[in-house]
This record gives sequence, structure tokens and C-alpha cells, in this order.
Amino acid sequence: MDVSHHLTTLLPHDPTASSVGSTVISLTVFFTLLCACIVIGHLFVENRWVNDSTIAILLGLCAGFVTLLISKWKSSRILVFSDQLFFIFLLPPIIFNAGFQVKKKQFFRNFLTIMLFGVFGTLVSFCIISIEMSSSLLFGTLLLISKPVVAVGAIFSATDSVCTLQVLSQEETPLLYSLVFGEGVVNDATSIVLFNAVRKLDFSDIDTLVVLKLLGTFVYLFFTSTAIGIGVGLLSAYVIKTLYFGRHSTDREVAIMMLMAYLSYMLAELFSLSGILTVFFCGILMSHYTWHNVTENSRLTTRHSFAMISFIAETFIFLYVGMDALDIDTWKASDKSVGEMIVASGILLILVLVGRAAFVFSLTNIVNFFKNRIATRISLRQQVVIWWAGLIRGAVTIALSYEKFTRSDSTSSKNGSFMITNTIIVVLFSTVVFGSVTKSLIRAILKQQMNIRCSEDTDPAGLEDLHLLFEEHGEDDGHLVNSGLLTRHSSSTIHNLWRKFDDRYMRPVFGGRGYVPRSRF
Amino acid sequence: MDVSHHLTTLLPHDPTASSVGSTVISLTVFFTLLCACIVIGHLFVENRWVNDSTIAILLGLCAGFVTLLISKWKSSRILVFSDQLFFIFLLPPIIFNAGFQVKKKQFFRNFLTIMLFGVFGTLVSFCIISIEMSSSLLFGTLLLISKPVVAVGAIFSATDSVCTLQVLSQEETPLLYSLVFGEGVVNDATSIVLFNAVRKLDFSDIDTLVVLKLLGTFVYLFFTSTAIGIGVGLLSAYVIKTLYFGRHSTDREVAIMMLMAYLSYMLAELFSLSGILTVFFCGILMSHYTWHNVTENSRLTTRHSFAMISFIAETFIFLYVGMDALDIDTWKASDKSVGEMIVASGILLILVLVGRAAFVFSLTNIVNFFKNRIATRISLRQQVVIWWAGLIRGAVTIALSYEKFTRSDSTSSKNGSFMITNTIIVVLFSTVVFGSVTKSLIRAILKQQMNIRCSEDTDPAGLEDLHLLFEEHGEDDGHLVNSGLLTRHSSSTIHNLWRKFDDRYMRPVFGGRGYVPRSRF
Repeated sequence: MDVSHHLTTLLPHDPTASSVGSTVISLTVFFTLLCACIVIGHLFVENRWVNDSTIAILLGLCAGFVTLLISKWKSSRILVFSDQLFFIFLLPPIIFNAGFQVKKKQFFRNFLTIMLFGVFGTLVSFCIISIEMSSSLLFGTLLLISKPVVAVGAIFSATDSVCTLQVLSQEETPLLYSLVFGEGVVNDATSIVLFNAVRKLDFSDIDTLVVLKLLGTFVYLFFTSTAIGIGVGLLSAYVIKTLYFGRHSTDREVAIMMLMAYLSYMLAELFSLSGILTVFFCGILMSHYTWHNVTENSRLTTRHSFAMISFIAETFIFLYVGMDALDIDTWKASDKSVGEMIVASGILLILVLVGRAAFVFSLTNIVNFFKNRIATRISLRQQVVIWWAGLIRGAVTIALSYEKFTRSDSTSSKNGSFMITNTIIVVLFSTVVFGSVTKSLIRAILKQQMNIRCSEDTDPAGLEDLHLLFEEHGEDDGHLVNSGLLTRHSSSTIHNLWRKFDDRYMRPVFGGRGYVPRSRF
Repeated sequence: MDVSHHLTTLLPHDPTASSVGSTVISLTVFFTLLCACIVIGHLFVENRWVNDSTIAILLGLCAGFVTLLISKWKSSRILVFSDQLFFIFLLPPIIFNAGFQVKKKQFFRNFLTIMLFGVFGTLVSFCIISIEMSSSLLFGTLLLISKPVVAVGAIFSATDSVCTLQVLSQEETPLLYSLVFGEGVVNDATSIVLFNAVRKLDFSDIDTLVVLKLLGTFVYLFFTSTAIGIGVGLLSAYVIKTLYFGRHSTDREVAIMMLMAYLSYMLAELFSLSGILTVFFCGILMSHYTWHNVTENSRLTTRHSFAMISFIAETFIFLYVGMDALDIDTWKASDKSVGEMIVASGILLILVLVGRAAFVFSLTNIVNFFKNRIATRISLRQQVVIWWAGLIRGAVTIALSYEKFTRSDSTSSKNGSFMITNTIIVVLFSTVVFGSVTKSLIRAILKQQMNIRCSEDTDPAGLEDLHLLFEEHGEDDGHLVNSGLLTRHSSSTIHNLWRKFDDRYMRPVFGGRGYVPRSRF
């Protein structure tokens, strides 16, 4: 365990005062930029072309450019992008907060669709990108070895859930938000399986057994990750309900919620599972049980402070990406010309577009086929938004790219830097261009849709009434049921069964909505 | 600026999976321990012998011991103590929160006493420890070169403000809290001056000019540090009042408050000033102006989340100290026997006791001499508590010790490790023994005092009435005034002048209590 002093090599024991000074300098610059992002973001909040991520990236680019000028074109690095800093410190709070604030009913209603997108969608996208990349290899544009090609497929088929949070609003488009964001979360488990498969497998002979094995690994990964998240969430609810920290101090309550959420992520990573899935489900459980067990003050504090931490982490990431983009060492390290880079990035972008289109339009139509009631189907306009909103590749893509291409054998370091610069171009382009268009696109495309939805807003309530009718009439409602209503009815029944189970077995132990903490002393 | 990638060397780009794994392991262990601390601390909250810091240190010691067993007596390090991690990430939130939650009236009423303690108290303590250390050198117990002796004086004369927060309660003993804690904050500026003086000066020929120069440096340091804190605090108030972030999102408000507070510390460190003083005053200004300018939700969130972050940082520090205490490398590196260590640590402890006694009892009596009204004097019992509560040496001492003894020339590394182990022994002993006795001591000693204070509780109000009487009667109150009342009257007048100034010039610009943010759109 002696190796594990990395956390504290954060700042070196270097005796030279200058290195200490430069850490302070870079932190000062970074915090100033973060403040600037917040202020500018606030000023442009009603502008439909600009979002927070675009501002942070552009500001980062400017800062990188200024640094480059000051250092006389030697270096633009104030902070170096580290994929581990990203995966260990920045990503968990964002995903946890997403789980904490997600509309649970909406999420679980679309659970099957989300799983379909997250698993098979990613697979389709992965295959298309990999195969087309190998074929474009024939044209000599991307001169890479075969394994990296598959890795590129895996990297670029990963939806960036952080970006989704930025461009889709849970309030305005709840269905699309839960579909695209949920896809991003499930996608993480798929990516891990794909990544490990890419590392270990020999893709020249794939048979049914291998595919089944992969599927088995995915199922194992999915269920164990989810189980850890649920377990830690329930534990936190139980501990807080039993000990009732709020009696003495709000700080302890809030602190233990935060620490246990983070712990769930760490535990999952410890067992090489999907930390993102774990911390997402931990967030859902905590918002369902734990959050209701704490005092009023703690509820307000947790809701806002989790959102705030997530907000800072997001801004941090985009600033980081922007500042790192101008990193001159990576650009120099690759021996390709600017033209080749642009062509390669363009091809990658097109592949991403095609790969996503392939599975979004096909899978939604499969889903629609099983939904007999027209109102619940996913319309073509919505499909376009799902396709478009998931196109953005952001920090997750960059982090994966760094993980893959800087860590692997250094012999292919030239190809590595080439791939990293390509990734950066794709990320910059997609975030700035796709990202800024998205808001307007959603408004333009879904305007009509929105109007329809507004008139339909009473629908769920109406359905609930119908459902009550079903229950009152007992079993003699066979004549009413067409298969479409049956589907809704069955999902509604699942929800009802869950509620009964929750009320009878879970809430007495773990608290939850309506639980009033009382001092037992 | 290329050197400044330290923040992200946090987690290395090491290609071996094991190092990544071990980072995850140590983080998991650490977060589990933090949770355990919170739970145990909650269970023992009504126990008067145990406080949070003792629990964290003991738990840290246990964890260190278990690690030692597992690694077969090779290493106890799960995380290595880094003085910079401490000074850059853990200390600022603690001090900021202290400034944010401090009772401002009480603090400024005792401002002169606090300054006296913080400046001359530290100097007296420093001289006594240094001189007696050099004389005990004659007995051959501590074989050190002359410069480290003075450094030891500087290190051990630094009161640990973090510990004070743990043992003294602002609610129960507001006067003592503000005196001892305030001393700790001002002490930081003194320590920096002393430290730099120790580094540069030749102590063999000290004349009046040198002393004046040192005093000048201190005054410069004190005023610039305070000015930066006040400046950033006012800026945050102005920005938040003008832009009114809360209109769109609470997250932005909370985030910018936190970021600007941290920025003030970084700015001070950038100019080699006292970051602690800066962030403390920034906290005071923010609680006076900024906090009132934000929305109701943000107020609650900031108050609790700042307290929570500070709480986690404190627990983290004590856990860290406990885990690091058993570090076998440092113990081995010193060539002294266990007996010598115990003798040396004992001498150090006694010196700390004597050094503090010397200035507390003498300075309070000087202060008392100028206070003619008996009720406002600091009683002997209170003096004992001030002496005792400031005795505890904690994480700040360890951090300074590491900074001094691991960074300096490696030739004296044996003496360095010897001093570090001594520091650890003193810190462990004083935190665990002094710390656990303090609560009971305060109750026992101040019981009588408390009763007196209870009957006196109406005093401030009564005085305020008297003060109003003065004002109404205009100038013809000369016959009423004895010099004791004059003192109170004058301080009260200063307060009044400040309030008038505040109401007329500051609040219209920077907001503050009673300010109601309105949407201008």
C-alpha cells in the first residue's frame, strides 16, 4: 500500500519556491476563469445560441491562447488534463446529482427504451464507426493499427451524459431528457465491457460463445453496479433514520450523505465495476429515501449544494477542455499535416453522425412498433432531437481518449497524439457548433410538439382515473382493453406493485417521503 | 508556467493498473474512516471527555496500526501528509467558515486584546521557547544546530486555530472563543514574519533598526492581507447585488460566493501574504454584506454547506494526523533512542506550557489594568482557560514542521525526522490529553463565572440604554462619566460611527442586512 501516496503528490515536496508559486498561480487563474464563466453565463442565460459549456470552452481557449502568447508559443498548459482527476473527482458529483434530481417516474417508465438505447444503440454505433473506420483505412487517410481503430469506435460511441445535461432541460422536454441522459448512464457500463473486450479479445474469430460471454459480463456488470448503488443508498437512509444526526448538527447529516455517495462510486471502482451506474442509482435511492429522513435545513442544503458542486465540476471540465485544446506539445508530437487532421476529424464526425442515426431511428421504430397507442410513440421530430442531442462529444470522450492513447505503449505515441488532436477537434466542433444549435433546434422542431403536449398535459391524470376505474371494476374490464392500453396498464400495475411493496416493507425501515424525524431523547 | 501541472499529478499517468487501484483503495479507506468518524462523533456528542478531533486522531491511529500489521511492519502510510495539500485545500475552508460564522460584535469589541495576544503573545512565546531550547542544548539533550532551534520556537509558538474551534464553543464562552480564536488568526501573520525573519536574519546582531523593520513588515503584511480580504468580500457583495444571480439559479450564487472566497486566499498566497488573515476577513465581509444579498435558499445553503465543508476538512486533518503518526520511515530515519525522544518531547511540552503562561497572564493583566470597570476585566479563571485552550498544538503545527524540516537541506535530515517525530508526539499528547480535559476544565472552572454572567446577561442592553441616555442628553453628561464608563462609551461610539458610515455609504452600494433583492426584469 506504499504506492498509494498519489493523492498527496498533488502538490510536490519540491524545495524550490517557484513550483509552489506556480501552483498558486495556476489555481488563481483557474478560479478567476471559473468566476468569469459564471458571470458571463449569467449574462447570456437568455440567449438561445449560447450555453454554459460553450462559454467555458471558448473562455478556456482564450486563456490557452493568452498563455501561449505569454510563454512565447512554448506552452499553453496551465493545468494538464488528467483522465484520472476527471474520473475520480469531477465526474462522480455530476452523475450523482443527475440521479439525485432525476424525475424517477419518467425515468423508470422509459426504462426498457433506455436500456435498449444504452446497450444495443452503443453496440450498433460502435460497430459502424469501427467498420467504416477500417474501410476508410483503405483510402489511406487514417494510418492506424487495427486495435486503435476498434478503440476509436468504443470511444466515439460513448454518449457524453454531461453534455446532455447542458443542452436538454428536464422541465421542458422530460421524455427526451430521460431517454438521452439515461442512455448516457447505461452506456457507461456498455463502454467498460467494450473497452475490456477490445483489450483482450481477438476480433478475427468471434463466435456465438464469445458474444454470449460479453453479454454475460455486461449483465453481471450492470446488476452488481446497480446493487452497490442501491445498497449504499439504503444504508445511508437506514443510518440517518436510526441515528438521526440532525438532532445535534446539520453538518453531520449533510456530510455523511455526501461522503457515502462518493463512497459508493469508489467501491464500484474498487471492484472494477461501472462507478457511474452505481453513483447514479445511489443518487436515485438517496433522493427517494435518505433525503426525506433528514431535517428541513439539510434537505434544502443538500439539494442546492449537490447541484452547485455538480455545476462547478461541469464548468471546470469544459474550461479544462478548452484550455487543453491549444496544447502545443500534442500538436507537435503528431507528424500529420493540418489538412490530414481536418480530413480525419471530418470523417470521424461523419461517422459519429451516421453511427448515431443508424441506431436512433431503427431502435425507436422498434420501440414504437410495440407501443400501440399513438400518443406514447416517439415521433420523428423527437427522434431527430434524440439523434442530435446525443451527438455532442465532450469531456468524457476526451478523458477516454487520453486514457487510451497516452497510457498505451509509447511506441505508437505519434498515432496517439494524432488521435488525441482529432478527438479535441471533434469535441470542440461538436460542443460549440452542435451545442449552440441544439436549443434553437429543439424549439423549432418541437414547437408544434409542445403545443400538442400542452393539450395532452392532462393525459397522465386522465389515465390514472382510467386506471382507478379498472381497479374499481375489478376483472370485468376485458372488453375495454385494447393491447395499447394493456401496455400502459401493465406498466402502471408494476408501479402500483412497487408502491405497495415500498409502503409495506421499505418505508418502515428506510423512511422516505412523509417520514418525520423525531427526537427520541 | 509549464511547471504548474502539479494539480493534476494528483493521480499519475502511470500505466500500471495497480497504482490506480491503490489510489482507489486509499480513497475508499479514507472515506470509510471519515464516515466512521462522523457516526462515532455523533454517538459521543454528549460525552464531555471526547471531542471530534480526539475521535478522528484515535481512529487514524488505529487505521495506521492495522495498515502496519497488514504490510508486516513496513509502512503505515495510506496517505502521506503533505503540508501543501493542507495549506492549499484544507485550511482555507476552515478559516473562511470561522470568519463567516464569527460573532462580529464580540470580535471587534476585543480587537485590541486579540491583536496584543496575536502579536506580542506570539513573540514572547517564541522568545521563551527559543532561548530555553538553546539553554537546554547545553545539557546535550537536543543536539541541533542553532537555526532549527529558532524555527522550533516559531513553530511551537503558533496557536492552532483549528483546535480552538473544536474545544471552545462560541455560544457558551463567546469572550474566550473570540480571544483565543482571534489570537490564532492574527498569529498567522506574526508566524509568517517570524518564519521569514528566521530564514534571513542573523540573530547574533539584532539592533533596534532590525526590530523596527520586522515590525514594519508585520504592519505591512497585516494591512495588505486584510485589505485583500475586505476587497474581495466587497467585490462579491457588489457583483451579486448588481447582477442578482438568484434570478436564474441559486447554484450560480452559491458557487460564486465559494469561488471568490477561495480566490481571496489564493490571491494573498500569490503575493506571499497571510492567506489565513485574508480569508478570515473575507468571511466576515461576506457574512456582513454578500450573505444578505442572495436569495433565501442560497442563504440557508451557504451557511450550512460552508459549515459542512469546514467540518469535513477538520475531520480529514485530524484523521490524517492520526494515520501519519505511526509512519515508520520517519521513526526509523531518526537515530535517537525512544528515551531521548520522550525527554525531548517532554521538554518541548513544558516549554509550550511555560511560554504560553508567560504571555497570557502578563498580557491579560496589562489589559485589565486599562479596564477600570471590574465586570469587563478578564478574571483569573478565564485567564487559566485562555492559557489552557491555546495550549493544544495540532495540524497547523505538524504542517509547519513538515514544511520546515522536510524541505530544508537534506544533510540535516536525521535531525529533521527527529524534530518531526517530536512534533507528532507533542501534537498527539496535547490533542488527546489536553483536548479531552478542556471541556470538563471549562465547566469546572467557569461554573461560577457562568452564573455571574447569567445574572449579567442584561448588561449589554442596559449599557445600550445608558448610551441612548448619553445621546439624548447631548454633551452635558460630563458629571456622569467615570473613566471606566468612558472606555465602554468610546468603544460604543466607534461602533456607532461605524454603523452610521455603514448605513450611509456602504449599504447602498454593497447591500447587507435588510437588503431585499428584486427582479429588475
